[in-house]
Amino acid sequence: MNVSFIGLGIMGLPMAKHLYRAGYLYKVYNRTRAKADYFLERGLEVSHTPKEAAAGANYIITIVSNSSDVEEVILGRNGVIHSASRGSTIIDMSSINPEISKQISLRLNEKGIQFIDAPVSGGEQGAIAGKLAIMVGGREEVVKDAEKVLKVMGSPVHVGAVGSGGYAKLANQIMVALHLQAMSEAFTLAKKANLDAEQLYLAIRNGLAGSHALDQKVSNIVEGEYEPGFKVSLHLKDLNNVLDAANELGVHLPITNEIQRFMKEMHREGMGELDHSSLYTYLQKKQ
Amino acid sequence: MNVSFIGLGIMGLPMAKHLYRAGYLYKVYNRTRAKADYFLERGLEVSHTPKEAAAGANYIITIVSNSSDVEEVILGRNGVIHSASRGSTIIDMSSINPEISKQISLRLNEKGIQFIDAPVSGGEQGAIAGKLAIMVGGREEVVKDAEKVLKVMGSPVHVGAVGSGGYAKLANQIMVALHLQAMSEAFTLAKKANLDAEQLYLAIRNGLAGSHALDQKVSNIVEGEYEPGFKVSLHLKDLNNVLDAANELGVHLPITNEIQRFMKEMHREGMGELDHSSLYTYLQKKQ
Repeated sequence: MNVSFIGLGIMGLPMAKHLYRAGYLYKVYNRTRAKADYFLERGLEVSHTPKEAAAGANYIITIVSNSSDVEEVILGRNGVIHSASRGSTIIDMSSINPEISKQISLRLNEKGIQFIDAPVSGGEQGAIAGKLAIMVGGREEVVKDAEKVLKVMGSPVHVGAVGSGGYAKLANQIMVALHLQAMSEAFTLAKKANLDAEQLYLAIRNGLAGSHALDQKVSNIVEGEYEPGFKVSLHLKDLNNVLDAANELGVHLPITNEIQRFMKEMHREGMGELDHSSLYTYLQKKQ
Repeated sequence: MNVSFIGLGIMGLPMAKHLYRAGYLYKVYNRTRAKADYFLERGLEVSHTPKEAAAGANYIITIVSNSSDVEEVILGRNGVIHSASRGSTIIDMSSINPEISKQISLRLNEKGIQFIDAPVSGGEQGAIAGKLAIMVGGREEVVKDAEKVLKVMGSPVHVGAVGSGGYAKLANQIMVALHLQAMSEAFTLAKKANLDAEQLYLAIRNGLAGSHALDQKVSNIVEGEYEPGFKVSLHLKDLNNVLDAANELGVHLPITNEIQRFMKEMHREGMGELDHSSLYTYLQKKQ
């Protein structure tokens, strides 16, 4: 089994290392070539283009920044589409607009290439631990066949047809945004009422107010430190995708809308590089 | 150790039973006397007034519906204040406006009676299991002394001075409201995108989107059943208390405000008796 990997960023690099250790990794490609040194030192082929990386692979994984980057590495002049074998599967693990995933899939299918979208949640820590939540969209048999590859990086769950992985990720990002806002408003009230934030956390964490976002981010609020983690600017990109998708589907999401507006303002005010839990700081400023 | 218990409602009755089984229960009082049959049959005194119940007790627990009920049973004509011994402790476990708790505490302290506010989270299930989250406000030594009583019903955490328990409960209810809205918006988008709701849940539950509210309430959304649980009308009461408190403290809570507006409209439209997870249904109607 040959897996080529395109996109060795914060998430991609540790994911590719898991595939290497499993003995699946074939070739890698990254725009900034130096990021591939780990694999070069171990004798792997570091390709000069996505097209080169895809040639001869059974599975080609892409994980890049946004919709246009995905289009570039798959459909662009030096894209995967020009060399991928009939019957091979492209697994896009980027977080993009799911409607674009559907379009890409159609283009690939015309050439006998399979496509699934499989964005992830769990952050850099999850990628390093090989414990990502992987939300998978695609045809049943294609997804089933790719599971052995995905399981090396985390826990894949098949949520529907192509594009569904992306929609699940958007649903995920809606929830995370609202959970962070929940924490922000609750701890803002508590602070003004002179409650001890850590004791409050201990008092509520096991009840219906408990959440993974609270467990992972409450220390940021307590310590006033917003080292990312996951940047406001990236969450804003996701919420922009959410609202584009909502618009296309005719769905009204009133609170997501509000929080997107908050993050847009944070971005404008120079808070884009902070962890997204800094929604708390933003709310403090609005008092 | 003598503990008298006032208020044998959905929450109070199972809580009092735990105290009975622990050998702590002394006398009980409830407005509707028939609710006390369990204790009458077991030879306990069922008092005719809160005042009667409080006489001779070391600890007097009150858990009733709202601020004015608490004022009535503690400060009213037949209230606890007229018979409670100097040095005894009144533990109010109702969910009320924390500023009222502070006022009640001052009145009691003048007569040498201690007061702590200790509202709970965890619902009827938590009460029956003796596993409530108990948020406690009061002076250090008074809280410490009362812990052996509270531990029979759940896990007490001391969050600050008198009133802090109530503020912690309000913070808790903010978070729960936003978590339910998070789920509503995420699953509304997912539904329109033809995702399978149960698969979506499995895909996201272990990541940063995971929450106790999601775990406990997703089946309501999947099955379209909104048997309470916790009623919209009660959560609305709590959010009204939140916004009153926020107003008094000069705190701006933009999203809590919005969701209080949603619940007010739900109440007006006859959805007040449904479980609060019906925020999802309300959002469906707005599409």
